[in-house]
Amino acid sequence: MYEEKTIRTELIFTGNILSLRVDTIELGEGKTATREIVEHGGAVCMVALNNKNQILLVKQFRKPIEKYLLEIPAGRLEEGEDPSIAAVRELREETGYRAEDLKFIGKFYTAPGFTDEIMFAYLAQKLILDPLEPDEDEFVELIEIDKDKVEEMIVAGEIEDGKTIAALNLAMHHISA
Amino acid sequence: MYEEKTIRTELIFTGNILSLRVDTIELGEGKTATREIVEHGGAVCMVALNNKNQILLVKQFRKPIEKYLLEIPAGRLEEGEDPSIAAVRELREETGYRAEDLKFIGKFYTAPGFTDEIMFAYLAQKLILDPLEPDEDEFVELIEIDKDKVEEMIVAGEIEDGKTIAALNLAMHHISA
Repeated sequence: MYEEKTIRTELIFTGNILSLRVDTIELGEGKTATREIVEHGGAVCMVALNNKNQILLVKQFRKPIEKYLLEIPAGRLEEGEDPSIAAVRELREETGYRAEDLKFIGKFYTAPGFTDEIMFAYLAQKLILDPLEPDEDEFVELIEIDKDKVEEMIVAGEIEDGKTIAALNLAMHHISA
Repeated sequence: MYEEKTIRTELIFTGNILSLRVDTIELGEGKTATREIVEHGGAVCMVALNNKNQILLVKQFRKPIEKYLLEIPAGRLEEGEDPSIAAVRELREETGYRAEDLKFIGKFYTAPGFTDEIMFAYLAQKLILDPLEPDEDEFVELIEIDKDKVEEMIVAGEIEDGKTIAALNLAMHHISA
């Protein structure tokens, strides 16, 4: 079976949210190749549905693309943190809501061609408003949009965030119409 | 409106498939922060449906996670390449099929928290087998699976690739049941 055995690994950079390394791999017959790999600690995202059948979205400035995106709430895992704990924490930090009903609906790799980032997705229901003190570092605007309208916005290209589109696919199988 | 003005940018690494830079940004009131940004040239992915209502999947070793994933066919854009041209090329390279009917169904950012990678998604139908000479660098195995079964595999956690889950959400609105 084809595999990519590492024969050398070079750490290029260690940052706050990611590291970069280049692995040299053996391809057989004496041939080698390199793989550029972004190491990431993983993240969680939450399809949060309120009692009006609306989905909570956040509008967030994304520096890599220099624009705002509409996304479901999400955040990075702290080191060693259980994803379900992170889901509760990030939902409250970004939206001010706690979920009495939190269900794991799936996990996926966001860009497995070059990063190990894994995203754990949750469906959050029975929401209770319980805001934290505003965190200076969280510049997000909360928008609540009817579930059907969110699907329309995806089709219309108004939602361009991959994890949001993927997590809604996963959530669909757990939400009654 | 909140924005993140770059006051300094440092190029850390330039590789074959990505570059890494660190931007220092101004947050107001004299405060600064850094953003670690992976630059990527963009990619395409194709939900390819054959005349038996099966979706073409490829099984591919992904070095960053050291395992095989089942994914829809995909590939990186060449510099300046039109995404629809890349979709035709990559579909043929990975599956041996040409699509007589290729439709753009949406685009999304795979991981906008740290990379500018954009993914252009297509629905490919009316497939005609027209294989290339095998490319030594393409180690992918083609698997054709009933459309409904693919959705079941997503729910069951047997498909863990974010772009595949997202693109199937987009495709669903264009495929008749």
